[in-house]
Amino acid sequence: MSNKTVKAHCSAPQQDSEAHCSASQHDRAPQRDSASRVTNAAGRIVPTVINGKPAVPYMGVGKYKPEGFRAAPKIASCADYPADGNKVIPSLKEALLKAGLRDGITISTHHHFRNGDLIATQIFDIAHELGIKDLMWYPSASFPCHEPMTKYLEDGTINHIEGSMNGALGKFTSEGKMKGLGVLRSHGGRYQAVQDGEVHIDIAVIAAPTADPFGDANGVNGPTACGPLGFALADSQYADKVIIVTDNLIPFPCLPWQINGNYVDYVVVLDKIGIPEKIVSGTTEITKSPDRLLLAEWSAKFCDEAGLIYDGFSFQAGAGGTALSIGIYFSEILRERKWKARFARGGSNKYLVKMLEEGLVEYILDGQTFDLDGGRSMRDNPHHTWTSPFTSYNYHSKGNFSSMVDIVILGATEVDVNFNANVVTHSDGYLLHGIGGWQNTLFGKCVILPIPLFRDRMPVIRDQVTTICGPGELIDVIVTERGIAINPLRTDLIEKMKNSSLPIKTIEELKSEAEKICGVPAKPKFTDEVVAVVKWVDGTVLDAIWRVAT
Amino acid sequence: MSNKTVKAHCSAPQQDSEAHCSASQHDRAPQRDSASRVTNAAGRIVPTVINGKPAVPYMGVGKYKPEGFRAAPKIASCADYPADGNKVIPSLKEALLKAGLRDGITISTHHHFRNGDLIATQIFDIAHELGIKDLMWYPSASFPCHEPMTKYLEDGTINHIEGSMNGALGKFTSEGKMKGLGVLRSHGGRYQAVQDGEVHIDIAVIAAPTADPFGDANGVNGPTACGPLGFALADSQYADKVIIVTDNLIPFPCLPWQINGNYVDYVVVLDKIGIPEKIVSGTTEITKSPDRLLLAEWSAKFCDEAGLIYDGFSFQAGAGGTALSIGIYFSEILRERKWKARFARGGSNKYLVKMLEEGLVEYILDGQTFDLDGGRSMRDNPHHTWTSPFTSYNYHSKGNFSSMVDIVILGATEVDVNFNANVVTHSDGYLLHGIGGWQNTLFGKCVILPIPLFRDRMPVIRDQVTTICGPGELIDVIVTERGIAINPLRTDLIEKMKNSSLPIKTIEELKSEAEKICGVPAKPKFTDEVVAVVKWVDGTVLDAIWRVAT
Repeated sequence: MSNKTVKAHCSAPQQDSEAHCSASQHDRAPQRDSASRVTNAAGRIVPTVINGKPAVPYMGVGKYKPEGFRAAPKIASCADYPADGNKVIPSLKEALLKAGLRDGITISTHHHFRNGDLIATQIFDIAHELGIKDLMWYPSASFPCHEPMTKYLEDGTINHIEGSMNGALGKFTSEGKMKGLGVLRSHGGRYQAVQDGEVHIDIAVIAAPTADPFGDANGVNGPTACGPLGFALADSQYADKVIIVTDNLIPFPCLPWQINGNYVDYVVVLDKIGIPEKIVSGTTEITKSPDRLLLAEWSAKFCDEAGLIYDGFSFQAGAGGTALSIGIYFSEILRERKWKARFARGGSNKYLVKMLEEGLVEYILDGQTFDLDGGRSMRDNPHHTWTSPFTSYNYHSKGNFSSMVDIVILGATEVDVNFNANVVTHSDGYLLHGIGGWQNTLFGKCVILPIPLFRDRMPVIRDQVTTICGPGELIDVIVTERGIAINPLRTDLIEKMKNSSLPIKTIEELKSEAEKICGVPAKPKFTDEVVAVVKWVDGTVLDAIWRVAT
Repeated sequence: MSNKTVKAHCSAPQQDSEAHCSASQHDRAPQRDSASRVTNAAGRIVPTVINGKPAVPYMGVGKYKPEGFRAAPKIASCADYPADGNKVIPSLKEALLKAGLRDGITISTHHHFRNGDLIATQIFDIAHELGIKDLMWYPSASFPCHEPMTKYLEDGTINHIEGSMNGALGKFTSEGKMKGLGVLRSHGGRYQAVQDGEVHIDIAVIAAPTADPFGDANGVNGPTACGPLGFALADSQYADKVIIVTDNLIPFPCLPWQINGNYVDYVVVLDKIGIPEKIVSGTTEITKSPDRLLLAEWSAKFCDEAGLIYDGFSFQAGAGGTALSIGIYFSEILRERKWKARFARGGSNKYLVKMLEEGLVEYILDGQTFDLDGGRSMRDNPHHTWTSPFTSYNYHSKGNFSSMVDIVILGATEVDVNFNANVVTHSDGYLLHGIGGWQNTLFGKCVILPIPLFRDRMPVIRDQVTTICGPGELIDVIVTERGIAINPLRTDLIEKMKNSSLPIKTIEELKSEAEKICGVPAKPKFTDEVVAVVKWVDGTVLDAIWRVAT
């Protein structure tokens, strides 16, 4: 591994220098990327200073060893908190002011309300009204409902976002309009960054479907129930000030206490903190697309033929149509052989809950309930447990359970011939998605990406991904509708599948099949300006995201 | 508050100088108490250096404000832990060696197994066998089963204990035989000390009735089920190395995970980690003693007349016979008026579980199950929740719930005319008990001590307690079989009870009644050597315990 320092201006910002330097408009001093850049172990050019702080370039999987100590919050005293436990403050504005809302601080929120969140924007409405500037927003993810943040990014209320920048926020970022540099982290990386002191949260605002006046809170009860609150765990543990916002205040104790009131400074009661129908999507269904069903069938068959399914195995599948359909195939196999999965990782949904209730799965370890059945099951079934990025994903921990999962089914926007994969940018170069837990789950024992060979006549397998989010060495199998490619590093899987009836091909073969149909795709055009970075699970900088040349 | 520095030698180690300096045998250099002493805000003379570290004298309730930051453990990396999550090591000895067992370190254990613990002694057997010296043992409590530790204190394997020194260990300490200075902390103070970095645990050994190879653990399942594992929470979070010892290893995931494997380094499987019948005492019964029944009846009646019992109130009562009987009276009142207690604090037992199951109590928040019904209920009833010293008692937190409890029933070995109370030493000066959660619960809204006026013809109410464990301002009511004394600070209670049929008296009246019967008790005789200190919930030094003059 060598981190070669390169010139910052119009040098090759990626291995593929052609794509860059095509636009020259630099309409501001690049505050966010003023220092030198280096080529990291993934061969990507990344900045060494991010928003004024030094950053370590990616060194390879498991290569960077952290030195130092976890962040140490100030010691509090009960003498400074009400003896009757009542921390209720009349309004969010008052709570924010008491918590020390001021220029330049970091405010965090969580995304368990997904596109039904009514709180994050309110915080910045208040900050804007008070004339506060240069805030850093540290959400665990953002959604289309957060589009109003673009106006606060424009007027300087928010300097930059460290967290997913989806949809409108992604476009805004890709166009170079955000003042500071965006930082994309996985769910586990977000916990790691807070734990390690890379990100200091001044004020955490935790929207909670149920809470008591002391600040104990959970997401399983109440009219805006959203399941767990794990994405806010680090925030509660490490932020200077913690504000709970709820629309369902109950007398102490609020049990289960997914968030402990012992970490909480203030509690605010509002009429409504989320839009329930947008929190859980009741419409997540298995796919009806013949192509996707084929991907699901082949993925499941691959798992079975490779011996990955056994009595007591474990799996993680998302809530997408293909992943859900794979779960159906797994169910059939388990039922037929009278086997059980020891555990499944959620995002839970009605299909996974059905497996639990039928006894095909012993435990669901769940970071996010995706539908009402998921929420009900987590509330009522002790075998359906909420997890947090600490238990599941934090890489700077004495292990985490992502590496214990046998089969992990994931998506990707692009994969390259070295099995590197991208989930944040599209092939046109635009930042459009967050990382979620995707990077963290790559540590599973067999990582399978069922993806279409092309989307809108744009091949998904490329010479090089636009942005590396996952190093190829952790991605084992690509399942497409025209064949399955096994990572050459997995000689064990290649050996097991050598007599398979499934269409096993090389990834180069898959790529050329796609290019035969769609042609060789055009490369995205970028300026030499970095607008965001992708962190690896250990806090190092895996890749840079470049301003799109428009 | 003034902390006056006084001479260390044969000065008045307490207000009552007569009791001291009566013995002069100083058979060793007092390593444990070589520095200056001061008089603290409770009027007690305490050392300012404890086992080589500076200590802050008690400054009054809520007066000491901590500066600084929580202890910051080293950042770990998953790269250093097995990807398959299997941390099992063949033997405790091997685990201790891998964890860095060496001279002078601190080893912690928990006491959920109470007198049935089979692990703590084994650790020091191994250390002794290896010739390791000068260890500090940091148990959350000790029991008679730990008497073998005296030989390791004698031979230098253990330098000193910070934790309760009951029975034989207390006698050993009181006789000046322990090399270092004993430090007594409440359960909350123990958490606080670890959190604040006052005590650094090098190796935590957590005996767990059920665990998985990753180190997730709980106390609710398995042949040695003991209920919660909360007393080991701080140890898991802050120790350099954490060893789980179990006799019931199950496949991942071990749910509920009261201890998270993410904090754990090694897992050891032994045949038996505790003696079940000594873990839970199946014999805890309500009192049959007419005197104690009277205390119970008067205590309950006092609560009712003073308006402390209402629909939605909360209480904490221990597992002693008197406290249990008070619970029965509370039940009758609640049943009759169709009221419910919102929550009760355990130590749980069959009587409390019955209240929960009958619907007289909505929630049990439980730090320790005292019998099999308690254990069963915690395992199966989501309204019976395990707690930890962090949630319940940590004073250096943003509040804790001990101050939200309406009625707290406690015991004491002595009370003085200023309502100061003692729970650690007897009137003969010997250290015989630990503090447990006693200090922490003093923050409840009304603290009632039902105690006999004398024990073995020794009056319990004194001019001055032998050792102050609880400042009088936090103790509200003393109930004896000859009358009830209300703390003069509680003018509200005095007002409410002015027409009571109960025999309300002053504490001086109660004291002189006892002395009329038993005579004025002799004072214990001490040398001028400090053998242990009692910490207050905020880490300051509340009192010193002196070597008994023999």
